[in-house]
Amino acid sequence: MMRTRPLKVALLGCGVVGSEVVRIMSTHADDLAARIGAPLELAGVAVRRPGRVREGIDPALVTTDAVGLVQRDDIDVVVEVIGGIEPARTLITTAFEHGASVVTANKALLAEDGSTLHETAEKHGADLYFEAAVAAAIPLVRPLRESLAGDKVNRVLGIVNGTTNFILDRMTTSGAGYNEALEEATALGYAEADPTADVEGFDAAAKAAILAGIAFHTRVRLDDVHREGLTDVSAADIASARRMGCTVKLLAICERSADGRSVTARVHPAMIPLSHPLASVHEAYNAVFVEAEAAGQLMFYGPGAGGAPTASAVLGDLVAACRNKVNGARGPGESAYAQLAVSPMGEVVTRYHISLDVADKPGVLAQVATIFAEHGVSIDTVRQQGKDGDAWLVVVTHRAPDAALTATVEALRKLDTVRGVASIMRVEGE
Amino acid sequence: MMRTRPLKVALLGCGVVGSEVVRIMSTHADDLAARIGAPLELAGVAVRRPGRVREGIDPALVTTDAVGLVQRDDIDVVVEVIGGIEPARTLITTAFEHGASVVTANKALLAEDGSTLHETAEKHGADLYFEAAVAAAIPLVRPLRESLAGDKVNRVLGIVNGTTNFILDRMTTSGAGYNEALEEATALGYAEADPTADVEGFDAAAKAAILAGIAFHTRVRLDDVHREGLTDVSAADIASARRMGCTVKLLAICERSADGRSVTARVHPAMIPLSHPLASVHEAYNAVFVEAEAAGQLMFYGPGAGGAPTASAVLGDLVAACRNKVNGARGPGESAYAQLAVSPMGEVVTRYHISLDVADKPGVLAQVATIFAEHGVSIDTVRQQGKDGDAWLVVVTHRAPDAALTATVEALRKLDTVRGVASIMRVEGE
Ligand SMILES: NC(=O)c1ccc[n+]([C@@H]2O[C@H](COP(=O)([O-])OP(=O)(O)OC[C@H]3O[C@@H](n4cnc5c(N)ncnc54)[C@H](OP(=O)(O)O)[C@@H]3O)[C@@H](O)[C@H]2O)c1
Ligand SMILES: NC(=O)c1ccc[n+]([C@@H]2O[C@H](COP(=O)([O-])OP(=O)(O)OC[C@H]3O[C@@H](n4cnc5c(N)ncnc54)[C@H](OP(=O)(O)O)[C@@H]3O)[C@@H](O)[C@H]2O)c1
Repeated sequence: MMRTRPLKVALLGCGVVGSEVVRIMSTHADDLAARIGAPLELAGVAVRRPGRVREGIDPALVTTDAVGLVQRDDIDVVVEVIGGIEPARTLITTAFEHGASVVTANKALLAEDGSTLHETAEKHGADLYFEAAVAAAIPLVRPLRESLAGDKVNRVLGIVNGTTNFILDRMTTSGAGYNEALEEATALGYAEADPTADVEGFDAAAKAAILAGIAFHTRVRLDDVHREGLTDVSAADIASARRMGCTVKLLAICERSADGRSVTARVHPAMIPLSHPLASVHEAYNAVFVEAEAAGQLMFYGPGAGGAPTASAVLGDLVAACRNKVNGARGPGESAYAQLAVSPMGEVVTRYHISLDVADKPGVLAQVATIFAEHGVSIDTVRQQGKDGDAWLVVVTHRAPDAALTATVEALRKLDTVRGVASIMRVEGE
Repeated sequence: MMRTRPLKVALLGCGVVGSEVVRIMSTHADDLAARIGAPLELAGVAVRRPGRVREGIDPALVTTDAVGLVQRDDIDVVVEVIGGIEPARTLITTAFEHGASVVTANKALLAEDGSTLHETAEKHGADLYFEAAVAAAIPLVRPLRESLAGDKVNRVLGIVNGTTNFILDRMTTSGAGYNEALEEATALGYAEADPTADVEGFDAAAKAAILAGIAFHTRVRLDDVHREGLTDVSAADIASARRMGCTVKLLAICERSADGRSVTARVHPAMIPLSHPLASVHEAYNAVFVEAEAAGQLMFYGPGAGGAPTASAVLGDLVAACRNKVNGARGPGESAYAQLAVSPMGEVVTRYHISLDVADKPGVLAQVATIFAEHGVSIDTVRQQGKDGDAWLVVVTHRAPDAALTATVEALRKLDTVRGVASIMRVEGE
């Protein structure tokens, strides 16, 4: 049964993602109407530069008055694809206050202040959907919030940033250094002019906060996520990983502690075995493993960015929000009842790969091994290498708390025989 | 806000899946209550053999009167994990008539008569959820019905039966024949005593019908699915695939035609390149590719069967159905508005690998090539092999309609110089 009054959609932002949202809304208008039970009408498009030519958009709909647009009481759903904290936060809040539901792709804002947004949505009986905020079109938010709602998720581990995966993949396949690989990524449009958010891990950390929050039914904010980017990853690290039968990936890892009482969330480069499915995720693709008690290990894979894939996720949420409007229903709200503690990085337990530049003298290995033992970090393998006075020790440990490893490294730095700690990398996925 | 009246759940069947549903409902009762907004109460368990000891279940709840259980007007949600057509169909219908929503894992029934069930649910304002019917805990039904509701799915291709994947994987890694691999699968509990539903492709075909229906918004029934099992796959086929850089998998493939006006659904063994991600799906795992216009290529991977993984999917649906009961909302109903035609196998366009046992004479290749050309099937590569009077031609074609290939093979069989058509296998995933 199709109702005749169309559902009015206000679009905030019409860039890479927004323009694709408009394109799909118009080319697939009939399908969308059939799936929703009512036609969609684009009621207004807020942008910064109104003068730009925007294909397929009636210029009369374009406005710079985003606030005025979200204050209209006839808007059913607001799609926010501007990005950043402000004005996005104010606009979304205003939209809820005027009775609209919101679909957003804004990971930065959700990781910064998602709970406030959820509370405002709840207060006004509106929906807040955000599938596009994590890994674009790869369904992850809805599977975690709904498909796994009857299970206990213990771990989420994945590649959630395409830019950094592209850079690491190039470093791995061509032996290029970080700067050279970044240049190639920029030239091919995989990295932005200012790549900070990607290469310093901010983007992945925001996604980790969102994933941890929904996986563990606990509020997790960007500040709770331990974050290391990939700017320090060297060609030597990648070669070293290969010698171990591993590759280097920038991973987002959200884990429940062994006693189940706390969780951790972190983003950092890590070595993973070449046999691990994440090792074969190339170019700018994303892939995420979810480990749940009953379901076991699930993997989700696909393009994690781009205008069309992100718009696909936005449109899926738009259909859901609109169906709810038509049926007088509500989607799932925030689920943060578990209120687990978010533990600091020091409590994370994992394995480590450490390269030490040491003096070429007898007894060095014994000294180094003693330091590890004193800090309770058990060694799995040690490889000595070197020639012409240059000597290296490559140590791979068993699982140990991150704090113990940090203390070990501090003590190692004080040894006369250790000239430098060339690199420390965590080993995951085993 | 927790309401105090619990939601009453009736469980139909308490075998491999049902017993895990009960276990999770009791061990995670608090979490489920928090996520739903009301506690769950197991109101009754219908089985065939009431005398069996069932761990963790109050014997007073166990009944053989399944009809009486679903006729109770206090039941909020019925979970059907008996399987098969009857009595499951009657029980589900009765449950809807008495106001309950239904969660089922019953692929056979959904593929046989899903539309009637959806109509009955609709008529009584109830929900019908069935994530567990396809690939157990791997979220596929909800992503297709909801996450991709704003996109246009063009293809679903995957491994959806764990038993047959286990058998083919063993044949590939150990060189075992079909019978030997089946015996091993049975001994390890991967195949049932009567393996017909799995090895003849009925199970996969039911899943293909369900996936095609939701992907293309069109009714697709088991009878619409072209089905070939793997009982004819020989060790020679597997060796032949390896020589081509391929492996053999039993695939379920649902496709939209090039003109977009019809769809096809099929299950058969096929060769896929070793570089394709599905080639690395080992043992009893399942994996499904979904190709959508805007989203691009997505992959979902995980355990496709087993009590706990299937129960995880059932519980996710149970939480959704219960949330809807609490909020007076409704989940998505059947979406079959597109009413696309389901074309027969002859219209499928793909590539083929054909092994011919031929007379060891000059001119045979020319004869064979002429037959292919006459039927409009273009040859990609031919390999001639043979010694001591034995001669073989292995032909790999370009893409051609299945009907053209069938006609080609018929004509080849009539040639005096062709002693036999040893095998025909489709080549996919390129
Ligand atoms: N691009 C991706 O692959 C991707 C993937 C996942 C998620 N996302 C998220 O999607 C969102 C949008 O990303 P995008 O790549 O589409 O960004 P973008 O191309 O930079 O587009 C931003 C749009 O917002 C408009 N805008 C900026 N400031 C505004 C203001 N104060 N008032 C009104 N409009 C304003 C811009 O107007 P003008 O057109 O006039 O400049 C532009 O249309 C971000 O939250 C991003 O994190 C993007
Ligand atoms: N097992 C899997 O890995 C898996 C995966 C995905 C989907 N599924 C689906 O889940 C469903 C259940 O599978 P299952 O493996 O759990 O089957 P199962 O182990 O054979 O259990 C069937 C249950 O139904 C009961 N039952 C049979 N006939 C009945 C009747 N007429 N009235 C009442 N109860 C009856 C049986 O009672 P008794 O206990 O007294 O014998 C048993 O408890 C099927 O639709 C199957 O296709 C299973």
